[in-house]
Amino acid sequence: MNSDKLKIAVLGGTGNIGEGMVLRLALQNLMAEGVKNEVIIGSRSKESANEAAKKALSELENCGFDTSRIGITGSSNLEAAQAADVVILTIRFDHVLPLLNEIQEAIENKILITPVVPMVKEGNLFVYKPPEEGSAALAIQKRVPSSTKVVAAFHNIPAGKLRDIVKCKDVHDSIICSDDEEAKKLVMELTKHMGCLKPLDGGPLKQASTVESLTPLMINLAKLNQLKDLGINFS
Amino acid sequence: MNSDKLKIAVLGGTGNIGEGMVLRLALQNLMAEGVKNEVIIGSRSKESANEAAKKALSELENCGFDTSRIGITGSSNLEAAQAADVVILTIRFDHVLPLLNEIQEAIENKILITPVVPMVKEGNLFVYKPPEEGSAALAIQKRVPSSTKVVAAFHNIPAGKLRDIVKCKDVHDSIICSDDEEAKKLVMELTKHMGCLKPLDGGPLKQASTVESLTPLMINLAKLNQLKDLGINFS
Repeated sequence: MNSDKLKIAVLGGTGNIGEGMVLRLALQNLMAEGVKNEVIIGSRSKESANEAAKKALSELENCGFDTSRIGITGSSNLEAAQAADVVILTIRFDHVLPLLNEIQEAIENKILITPVVPMVKEGNLFVYKPPEEGSAALAIQKRVPSSTKVVAAFHNIPAGKLRDIVKCKDVHDSIICSDDEEAKKLVMELTKHMGCLKPLDGGPLKQASTVESLTPLMINLAKLNQLKDLGINFS
Repeated sequence: MNSDKLKIAVLGGTGNIGEGMVLRLALQNLMAEGVKNEVIIGSRSKESANEAAKKALSELENCGFDTSRIGITGSSNLEAAQAADVVILTIRFDHVLPLLNEIQEAIENKILITPVVPMVKEGNLFVYKPPEEGSAALAIQKRVPSSTKVVAAFHNIPAGKLRDIVKCKDVHDSIICSDDEEAKKLVMELTKHMGCLKPLDGGPLKQASTVESLTPLMINLAKLNQLKDLGINFS
């Protein structure tokens, strides 16, 4: 692999959103304008991460893509964060804070992307339950080195459509918030070439709370109105 | 006018969203399936309300609609609420609570629709600023008679498109929340025939906070991404 490629760690990359994210990021290597990258799947177990990497590569190969130009590897969460330039936290909120302690030093001066949504189920429906900081994004920012550039992105993405790299032609909006303009610009660029997403500038990190709260709203809308795997569009 | 028509008071009906709401509701009288209604514009000044009613009727007439089947009148906020079956609060949050004191008795046993969004401007952007109850909807529910059926609806509607009854063909989603299923059903029916809206069941009133917070988010997205008069769609 070429070392001038952007190294992206998808922590929790063996999960639901993580799987689709890995495939969509890796495919940018085959695009005329995508950001060339190496994807490192992070997991608590290095073995599952390795397994997931092999599975992703063979899925791309089975779809007919040229995997000689694609790099996906597996690693522990810590090693993945250490190796990466950009770290994506596709992890449940209650697992995020302990993980941040573990990868504290590894994420200095790096871009940290949070699609994390703190929510709980009450009865049949989900309710947004932010921590006292006001959002997962702000809670995360408080717990990382000041050199880490936190970007909130990829919250309201329909997992099934993200995962379905061949058939899904829908393009949904994805709102991106950060206090670091340069980091935001890079994440908007990554988003633009995901194949199913259109990036929208959502302003500073403080604005991420509404974006996070959209996820339980959309799950509820799907349930209450017999819809599924909803994405969002503004027009 | 026929007395079996639904009487709808649009309080603040001389304002931005109010104007479009009045026209779109009145036009339902000309539809095969719309809810037949009389619209009463409410305002602090009876004169401005009367003026607005005449203006709305003449606009509909100028567009070629048969206004003999349409009823729009003007009144003080209190008289409008007294005469109505359904009351819509198209009013700024800081004016709502004093008004509720005034119309307290008039809204007993009635449906009260709140599109109210408490927000403030911070720098260039808007921030959602709910009262301690968690949302305008819950603050309103706390201050009305227990027989009043509060429905949260019409928050995220692009005012220009709502107002543009002839040219605008866009159809955006409108999320409706209430603890009263029958009232919610009626408001969803009204929404369905607005010509530019598709109703989505948003669950109980408690869920309205995210829907309210979408309005400042959408204003910010428009500003930050050089877009305008944004509506929302889930698919």
